[in-house]
Amino acid sequence: MEKDFVVGIDIGGQSSKLGIVDARGEVLAQSVVMANSSADANVIIKELADAVIKLVAQSGKHGQIRGIGVGAPNGNYYTGSIAFAPNLPWAAHGEVKFAEKLSEACGGIPVSLTNDANAAAVGEMTYGVAKGMKHFIMITLGTGVGSGIVIDGKVVYGHDGFAGELGHTTVVQHNGRTCGCGRTGCLEAYCSAIGVAKTAREWLEMSNEPSLLREVENITSKDVYEAAKEGDALALRIFEYTGSILGRKFADFIAFSAPEAIVLFGGLARAKDFLYEPMMKAMNDNVLNIWKDKVKIVFSQLKESDAAILGASALAWEL
Amino acid sequence: MEKDFVVGIDIGGQSSKLGIVDARGEVLAQSVVMANSSADANVIIKELADAVIKLVAQSGKHGQIRGIGVGAPNGNYYTGSIAFAPNLPWAAHGEVKFAEKLSEACGGIPVSLTNDANAAAVGEMTYGVAKGMKHFIMITLGTGVGSGIVIDGKVVYGHDGFAGELGHTTVVQHNGRTCGCGRTGCLEAYCSAIGVAKTAREWLEMSNEPSLLREVENITSKDVYEAAKEGDALALRIFEYTGSILGRKFADFIAFSAPEAIVLFGGLARAKDFLYEPMMKAMNDNVLNIWKDKVKIVFSQLKESDAAILGASALAWEL
Repeated sequence: MEKDFVVGIDIGGQSSKLGIVDARGEVLAQSVVMANSSADANVIIKELADAVIKLVAQSGKHGQIRGIGVGAPNGNYYTGSIAFAPNLPWAAHGEVKFAEKLSEACGGIPVSLTNDANAAAVGEMTYGVAKGMKHFIMITLGTGVGSGIVIDGKVVYGHDGFAGELGHTTVVQHNGRTCGCGRTGCLEAYCSAIGVAKTAREWLEMSNEPSLLREVENITSKDVYEAAKEGDALALRIFEYTGSILGRKFADFIAFSAPEAIVLFGGLARAKDFLYEPMMKAMNDNVLNIWKDKVKIVFSQLKESDAAILGASALAWEL
Repeated sequence: MEKDFVVGIDIGGQSSKLGIVDARGEVLAQSVVMANSSADANVIIKELADAVIKLVAQSGKHGQIRGIGVGAPNGNYYTGSIAFAPNLPWAAHGEVKFAEKLSEACGGIPVSLTNDANAAAVGEMTYGVAKGMKHFIMITLGTGVGSGIVIDGKVVYGHDGFAGELGHTTVVQHNGRTCGCGRTGCLEAYCSAIGVAKTAREWLEMSNEPSLLREVENITSKDVYEAAKEGDALALRIFEYTGSILGRKFADFIAFSAPEAIVLFGGLARAKDFLYEPMMKAMNDNVLNIWKDKVKIVFSQLKESDAAILGASALAWEL
């Protein structure tokens, strides 16, 4: 029987999503597994495998699955392991041989694993806006800032499988904000959803400027976005600031791999109307002359509910 | 006849060096062509071709040359052109189809071209300390700061052939020094030979601290090196400062491509006794935990007089 389908699994802290995908990038069936039920990796893997087997059976694709692609925080492409992932209780304190165990539990279907941002990059290259691009940098603007770097049509994994941690390059050298990684001044500390909310809280504290955000308790980046849509000046400046930091840093990234485009995805990327111009301006102001006005910034157009599954699934075509 | 030899040409502003190299990286014969004799690219290329033909004839290797590799400022691997190279009068104001023309003038021997730092990276991978490494970043510390990035055993050229301009990533965001590229705050403005001399002049101006450097007119990085060898406190601090900036920036580079090592070459790299410790410390202090104490910094061991020729020649083995 032809193996014309793949399974994509997006591992999250709260829940994991899985889906069956065809070669055109259509998600034929999907389901969700609550992933916080246990701190025992074997229990989690068994639950996921059961969900995969059930979904395949329900959709009548038994024997037609080429492979399973998995996107997971701290997922390592070379080793197939998830190690020291702070948001996954079952993989927070050691190394879990995830790919090997999941494959075994799914009756030997091959499994390929990488981190979520790399999976997103493969997804965009296979089904999305980066189709046909050989050189691009994927930046995921979510709770954190992730990245997947594509050179010559291949994701860069580096010597150890952990390449592409651009969220943890430095934007503020001295006295920067503390980042989730334990260091200070990282891009992620400023330009993630959490970073944007932090900027809002800092700026509200620093002045008496009236703002819709003063009425909000526990400000999130979504609140800042909503306020910006209402024309709130402070909220608009927050996005301008965020966009400028991103653009300046993109200039550095371009000096590294000379990509055709920077591709943005993630919850915060929804604020593209507010981010795009300051981002473009800062990028072009800071890039070497040879790249001025030459590198595109494009936004993912994959349906957000499908994108994580698609990204992960795309890995499996390479198996 | 077996084609067991290659020619390497290192194009410089004042002079160009060429040599015949065997597979073990031995330079069998070499010569120098003054390269500032004309602003006409055709004259320069003719002179170089004549020198190649003469050298090949003298060494009795006629018909045994597999190809010619060229390292040149602003050399583009994809197009074979040298364009807008400020230090080459004959290629400063436009694009010179160098590879094509040189090949023609040398009776059709194939020519491969890239910039000097990329050539150095290929040289280290073929004959030097990076032999066997699949992932490393070459940093050349000379008049400027150049870089060649190797991923999966291949130099990264990017979408347009200009990837690897790490000397022009930003180290000082605001009010940084003006760089030769016209922007401010670039790594090159601080950590090149010129940058080190500038630091010396700035620091001497800012205090009355006694220093051997106060007796030097027109301070160069070599003077700072000589003073450091004498134990001069100011000179030693200059290298500590320079090394720290490099190390901090290496941490960012590592987040990009997760290399096995950073390989250093160039005049300023001779100060390795003074640079190594601050560089290592700053790198390990600023890198994500997964890379702490994992990435090596190594210094080229190719003879400096041969290295540029070797680097360029190594390109030709891929032809």
